[in-house]
This record gives sequence, structure tokens and C-alpha cells, in this order.
Amino acid sequence: MPFKTLDELRAACLDLPAGDDAAAGAVAARQDTLTKPRGSLGRLETLVAWLARWQGRSTPRLDKVKVVVFAGSHGVTAQGVSAFPAEVTGQMVANFAGGGAAINQLAKAAGAELAVIPLDIERPTGDFTQELAMDDADFLAAVSTGYDAVTKDLDLLCLGEMGIGNTTTAAAIATALFGGGADVWVGRGTGVDDAGLSRKAKAIETAMTLHKDRLADPLAVTAAVGGRELAAMLGAALAARKLGIPLMLDGFVTTAAVAPLRKLNPQGLAHAVAGHVSAEAGHRALLAALGLEPLLDLGMRLGEGSGGCLAVNILRGALACHTGMASFTEAGVSDK
Amino acid sequence: MPFKTLDELRAACLDLPAGDDAAAGAVAARQDTLTKPRGSLGRLETLVAWLARWQGRSTPRLDKVKVVVFAGSHGVTAQGVSAFPAEVTGQMVANFAGGGAAINQLAKAAGAELAVIPLDIERPTGDFTQELAMDDADFLAAVSTGYDAVTKDLDLLCLGEMGIGNTTTAAAIATALFGGGADVWVGRGTGVDDAGLSRKAKAIETAMTLHKDRLADPLAVTAAVGGRELAAMLGAALAARKLGIPLMLDGFVTTAAVAPLRKLNPQGLAHAVAGHVSAEAGHRALLAALGLEPLLDLGMRLGEGSGGCLAVNILRGALACHTGMASFTEAGVSDK
Repeated sequence: MPFKTLDELRAACLDLPAGDDAAAGAVAARQDTLTKPRGSLGRLETLVAWLARWQGRSTPRLDKVKVVVFAGSHGVTAQGVSAFPAEVTGQMVANFAGGGAAINQLAKAAGAELAVIPLDIERPTGDFTQELAMDDADFLAAVSTGYDAVTKDLDLLCLGEMGIGNTTTAAAIATALFGGGADVWVGRGTGVDDAGLSRKAKAIETAMTLHKDRLADPLAVTAAVGGRELAAMLGAALAARKLGIPLMLDGFVTTAAVAPLRKLNPQGLAHAVAGHVSAEAGHRALLAALGLEPLLDLGMRLGEGSGGCLAVNILRGALACHTGMASFTEAGVSDK
Repeated sequence: MPFKTLDELRAACLDLPAGDDAAAGAVAARQDTLTKPRGSLGRLETLVAWLARWQGRSTPRLDKVKVVVFAGSHGVTAQGVSAFPAEVTGQMVANFAGGGAAINQLAKAAGAELAVIPLDIERPTGDFTQELAMDDADFLAAVSTGYDAVTKDLDLLCLGEMGIGNTTTAAAIATALFGGGADVWVGRGTGVDDAGLSRKAKAIETAMTLHKDRLADPLAVTAAVGGRELAAMLGAALAARKLGIPLMLDGFVTTAAVAPLRKLNPQGLAHAVAGHVSAEAGHRALLAALGLEPLLDLGMRLGEGSGGCLAVNILRGALACHTGMASFTEAGVSDK
């Protein structure tokens, strides 16, 4: 277990490797020689430079892309915050194993390997309106599981999650980290009605009062009102940075899970790109708070890593152009 | 040659097949049984229904996707409207043949076949500030070439173009069809400076006066101020509709090329989806005028079909989910 105390974890979050500016600069220089008006591939050009910077290679690659879906169960579902029953978390983990979920299809379409890691789903976290979601040991174990799930051979890590109740959890983290009140951050998740939406906001406001002494510390926030799959994503995001692996985020829950890293360290999410902005109400504001510009905006709100996985194909297109295009000189095309 | 007179072409544009509502309905019904909250795949769900509607099949497919890039030369380049010399059009056609352009890489990444069709590029159209770009025979020949380039076996047609000067041409069409003055529609294209931008607007305003008697007829607009590659794309878009093939648009030039179809017939572009909104200044307004919502917004402004081709992967992801996902019943997942 890589992190035995919050202090060890905090120290790891504060001591992050910088990006490889030389590799990114080499990509940018090559982009300007290719047969297109300079800059005309827009974000496709900057994405390749971003891959180079965080892979630490002037010729980035996407040979080994992995989607890791973490699943967890949430005690706060007792407050009636979800449109689906809590047992759906385990049923969906079985559906992932059977190949029947959206993420199975989207991972395949993106040429990505899929791994699903359930975190004690038979043992929900504490109901954060009554108690801590996780004590330090439980939280650190989940972070460590996420950290250890990332291997050095990856060219890109995509985060995904499953957990009935976890948009409430994510909104609680966002409220604690960025303020503004629960109403700014709650959304309909899998489809709660107005009464359910009110229950979500109320549960979060209750938790903000109950846990107010812990909310100044971003890591303690996730322990108090988060969930194991969110803690694991935080650990995985940290591991990716340490191992030189660019990170693809998905929707509201994924983004909230990694937000503490940015809150602790201004450069904490420099290795991350937002695959999409979800239809979940708080996601756009959360991305803005983190300075992340989403690649896709297609009204998706499924989680599982679905939006991030779809965006992998944008990266593949960007890299294909960078790698395969001829230069003005090679093609005998007159430059501007 | 399918169209020998403007009247024949106009009649064909007015007599368009309707979409298959039953096929689209079958897709929507299946979507609601799949293991995800209803509607949570956002546009991915409606895109599959759109494919079904215009393929006329309740189980749509994307086995045969083709990008056709039409290239043309523009007399209006004499007015200094482009940052690149006119000979680049032919050089880029050679680059397409050699596999070195962006569209070669993006077509491959999208699993799409690529065809490039140059339209008399050694013989530029007339300079529309002085004369008609094309007489009726020239225009109809180009439309017919585009029409004949589309074969019934395709599951999706992506339009692309190459032609130094053609953002001026496209802006002239948009000005004629939608008004507002040239300043609304001109942009920097491949990268003209402020003086070049003024020359673009001035050329268009001159043409609007010179050809004012022809601008009430959308088809005559393209003949007067368009280009052969734009006329060909109009023909290809029409053929796609007649043959039951959904249509993927690319950027500003592609969109302007097919706009007359919508102007002639309110349902004229119902079989089309906008792959992206380009960074070219007028594209967002043009899409809005046509009621098209772009799939991607990545600051691209290259043309060639690049943005549309990139968006094919969104369709592939959408279709993969629809085809491969398990239902609630099949997976034993509790519904809401």
C-alpha cells in the first residue's frame, strides 16, 4: 500500500514531475512544417503537444490505451438521492464483465483495454449525513488501490466509474472544495425528480455542517464525503502523473474525484484533459473551476468513462495527422 | 449527365424522399431498453436514430463510409483573397494522391475510403467580381459530376473540398442566400491578414451588385459566385438524399455548398449532420441559419473533410453502443 498516512499522500501530491517542454516544443515545431495552414488543425495540434509533454516523448504514441472503471457503493443512497436502487452498482459490474455496458462498446471502438475494479461494493461507505464516508485507513486503502492499478507501460489512462449515488458524492466534494452551496453542484444524475434533487442538496448541506472541521483539507474532503471509487480515481490520477502517463477524464464524478489534486497543487491536473462536458448540471462549472476545456459536448451523462473513451478517437486522429502528414517540402507544396 | 438544365436540377431538389420514421422509431425504442439511464448517451442516441431514418433501416450500419474531396480553382483569387498562391490547389491534389495530407490520415483513422475528384483545376472559374463564376452548362456539369460520384452502396457520405480562394466563394454564397452583408460571412480562411480580409469583403460586395439579378435563385447563386467543387458537393448531397445515404458535412465551405438545397427545400438537409463547427468566422452563423448543430468544436479550419471525418468516430461509437449493449432484462439489471 503506497500511502499509509494522509501526510504521505499529501506529500506525494505536492511533489509532482513537470512536463517535458522540449518534447512538446518538438511537436509544435513539426506541426508548423506540415501541409496545412499553420494552426488549422486547432486543438488537434495542441493535443499532440500535450501528449508529448506528459509522455515525455517528442514522438508520442497511443499504442496502449487503458480505461479503468472503479466501482463503489455509497451509504448516502439511504437518503433517497438516486433514481436507481443501490444494488444496480453490483449488477452493472456484472454487466461490465459480461461485455454488455456502454463502456464495453466504447472501449472497443477506441482501441482501449478495459479493466473494472470494484472497491468493496458489498460494504457501502458511511452515510455522510450521519458519519464520515470513510475513515483515514479506508480512504487510503482505496487511493492506494487506484494508484496500484496504473502500470508504467500505458500511453494514456482513461478514468471511469460506477456507483449508484456518486453524483451526490461528487457534488458534495465540489461544494466542499469550491463553495457556492450545494444547489450549484447537484444535478439529476441517473434521473431523479425534483424531490430527489432537493434531497441531494439537503444531504450535502447537512454534511457540510457535520464535517465542517475537515473541509479545509482537500484530501480529508474526499474521505469525509467521497466514495471509494472516487478515492481510487484520485490515486490513479496521481500514479499517472508520477509514471508519465497522460490522463483522460470523463464526466462530473471523475472530475470531482481528481479535483483535490488540483486544489492541493496548481499543476496537479496539468497532465489531464477533459474528454467531454456532461449534461450533469455541475460539470461545466467544475471544469471551469479547474481550468479544463472539454473536447466533446454531446449531452452525455452516463459516466463509466464513456465520454472520455469517445474522446480517445479525437486524440487518435490528432496523432495520426501529426505522424502521417507530409511536410511542405516533402510534398512540394508552396508555403504561404 | 443527370441535369441538363437548371429547371431539371431545381425539380430534383424539390422532390426529395422523406426519412424512414419507422426505422428511427425502432432505434429509439431499443435505446430505451439498454442498460443505461434513458437518454444518458445524449446525442449518441439521436445520431443512431438519424442514421436509421436516412438509411431506411432499423439496424443501421457504417460498414462503407466514404469521404469524397472535390477540388476546384477560383478566378477570384486574382483579387488577392488568399494567403496561399492558387497553384497550391493542384499541389494539394497531388499531396492527397501521395497520402500526405491531413484527410488521408483522418480518413484512415475513421475507417473511411477516400476519393479525390479534381474539377478542371487547370481552368479556374471566372472571377466573380468581373463575370459569372460559371455559366449554366459549366455549373450543371460540376453538379452532375458530384451527383455521379455517389454510389448506392455507401452507408455514410462525408464531403470534403480543396480550392485556394474557396472561403471567399463560400462567403459569397452565404451573403447571397442569407444577407447581412459580406462582413458577417468572411473569415481569414488559410490565414489572410486584415488587408486580405477587406479584399475578400470588397470582392463579395462587388459581386452582389454585379450579379444582383440572379441572386433570388439559390442555384443561380452558386453558378454566379460559387466554384466547381461547391457545385459538385451540392450534387453529391442531392444524390445522397436520393440514394438513402446519410450525409456528413465538414466546415464552412462544405456547408455553404449544400446551403442552396436547404434554401430551396425546408427538408433539403434533413439527411445531413454537421461534423464540426470550424474556426472560420462565418461557420457558426451559417450552421445556425441552417438549423444544424455541430458535433465537434475543436478550433479546426482546414477543410478537406477533416472535421467531418473526425466526427465519423462519434457515429461509430454511437452505433457500437446501440448494437452491442445488453438490455436491462438480458443483463439482469434493475430498471429505474
